[in-house]
Amino acid sequence: MIKVALGIDIGGTNTVFGCIDPQGNCLMEGSIPTQKHDRIEDYLDELFEAIELGLQNPANDLKIIGIGIGAPNASYYSGTIEKAANLPWKGSIPLAEMVRKRLDVPVVITNDANAAAMGEKVFGAAKGMNNFMVITLGTGLGSGIVVNGELLYGHDGFAGEVGHMIVRKSGRECGCGRKGCLETYVSATGVKRTVYKLLARHLGASELRDIPFSQLTAKMVAEAAGRGDLVANETFSYTAKMLGEVLANVVAVTSPEAIFLFGGLTKAGDILFEPVRETLESQLLDIYKGKISVLPSGIVDNAAVLGAAALVWNSKNNR
Amino acid sequence: MIKVALGIDIGGTNTVFGCIDPQGNCLMEGSIPTQKHDRIEDYLDELFEAIELGLQNPANDLKIIGIGIGAPNASYYSGTIEKAANLPWKGSIPLAEMVRKRLDVPVVITNDANAAAMGEKVFGAAKGMNNFMVITLGTGLGSGIVVNGELLYGHDGFAGEVGHMIVRKSGRECGCGRKGCLETYVSATGVKRTVYKLLARHLGASELRDIPFSQLTAKMVAEAAGRGDLVANETFSYTAKMLGEVLANVVAVTSPEAIFLFGGLTKAGDILFEPVRETLESQLLDIYKGKISVLPSGIVDNAAVLGAAALVWNSKNNR
Repeated sequence: MIKVALGIDIGGTNTVFGCIDPQGNCLMEGSIPTQKHDRIEDYLDELFEAIELGLQNPANDLKIIGIGIGAPNASYYSGTIEKAANLPWKGSIPLAEMVRKRLDVPVVITNDANAAAMGEKVFGAAKGMNNFMVITLGTGLGSGIVVNGELLYGHDGFAGEVGHMIVRKSGRECGCGRKGCLETYVSATGVKRTVYKLLARHLGASELRDIPFSQLTAKMVAEAAGRGDLVANETFSYTAKMLGEVLANVVAVTSPEAIFLFGGLTKAGDILFEPVRETLESQLLDIYKGKISVLPSGIVDNAAVLGAAALVWNSKNNR
Repeated sequence: MIKVALGIDIGGTNTVFGCIDPQGNCLMEGSIPTQKHDRIEDYLDELFEAIELGLQNPANDLKIIGIGIGAPNASYYSGTIEKAANLPWKGSIPLAEMVRKRLDVPVVITNDANAAAMGEKVFGAAKGMNNFMVITLGTGLGSGIVVNGELLYGHDGFAGEVGHMIVRKSGRECGCGRKGCLETYVSATGVKRTVYKLLARHLGASELRDIPFSQLTAKMVAEAAGRGDLVANETFSYTAKMLGEVLANVVAVTSPEAIFLFGGLTKAGDILFEPVRETLESQLLDIYKGKISVLPSGIVDNAAVLGAAALVWNSKNNR
């Protein structure tokens, strides 16, 4: 019998789960589509049938000691999902309680960026670090902040919305209804918007002039940059500088020893990381200079599930 | 025999100390000038003679169980004061160790804004709060941030420099060598600078036109505002809006339940607090709206000494 944590990542398209041992090995895994059921109970029926099936495999002699769930708009304190725009279940869903009724073990839920931070601490490149942050660069920009070895939740469970720091007064429209939020510049979507801004401003040739806005992806921009496209390169430079500037301000609040960049956009590599590091270092207050590393995530596979399971393994009760 | 914490506040002009019981009563107090001795040992000789004298008073039957020290540029982790511009002792001073040699009890040191935050939590208006921040508005802008019931120190002990968040690119010159830091706008000094900017921009009458920059104080500006002076009023409005905007961004990092404003500038009262509240509320991300109070400090007298002593009384060992 091997003790494992069940990690569940509820994404907009798929829900992925896995049984993770204390060393981060995935001993059983699976997934179901997230959007099939309008009723959360039906969704949980399918999810737990799939989990049961995995556990019945005689090769698996697993004992689940706790469940960690990463989900959009999840509140750690209340154990609920609140008005998540990309999930089919409306209003406030008492997810932790509903899951606990199906499997009577401790259940922790939090948003995906916080789960990513815990994954980094327990299984990734932040092992042994007690003060660091993870920036997730996907469609939006998420952040998970660890201080004194624990996730920073704030008084309501919603701390760590660095993507919604306002960085340009009267700047780009944000999905949150305000203007100038960091994630409108620094995210896959932000990269697309910057490409179009630069195509409008400059006259130089660019392969990106042939792609309509609705079909453009950040990956295409990174590939064009790799081929020397000037607009693509300037886009990454602009994105990275904006991120570096804001990180310098966040450092003045939390003073982390490292900042990890995570998610699709980081596949761009040095054309993203180098100008982030340069700008951050040049903008930092003296006392912080030379102290803060900007690093890629140390987790290669199953990042979301490992992060969710790490919520269980980081708990004081399980150490 | 009454158990007390010895609180010591090392200011640029005076060093104030007091013996504080767990209820926040000051049972013995005194002060010495900070600048008299070039050698830190001579300064500590005089300080501890004064403390001994106070303890010898037969009316005082006090037992000091710990010492808390608030000082500029103090590092909690190393117990040192580092290159404090306004103190006579240069380089790195191992203050905690030197004090422990004179009185063999636990010694905690931190900067004055952190001490103010602990004072608020233990003796002031933040009792029972585990996630809040204190903004000290003096010559500069300091910040002490409490998360999960403990001070946020960051990995190096220097977290909480909200005054050095850059709020205007290529903005006002700051003493830190950079430009556009929050404290160049929001502080007693920032208020003076804003008055002069507005006097240059507008032609309207203002009593502040008769005061040279070197003699102007934030108190004069507050008094002029009270008399209806337009430039003085616009100055406070500008200052408060800038603070509200930045606090909205800090909330997106730490999600506190309350923000306390502390220090000389807060004597201006509603002409400062009201526009801070309005701007903060209007700039907040939806999930934070209506949740965060902006309040005056709940500590009336001896704030610095109470804050220093609170470092001792908040320690888990003394609860």
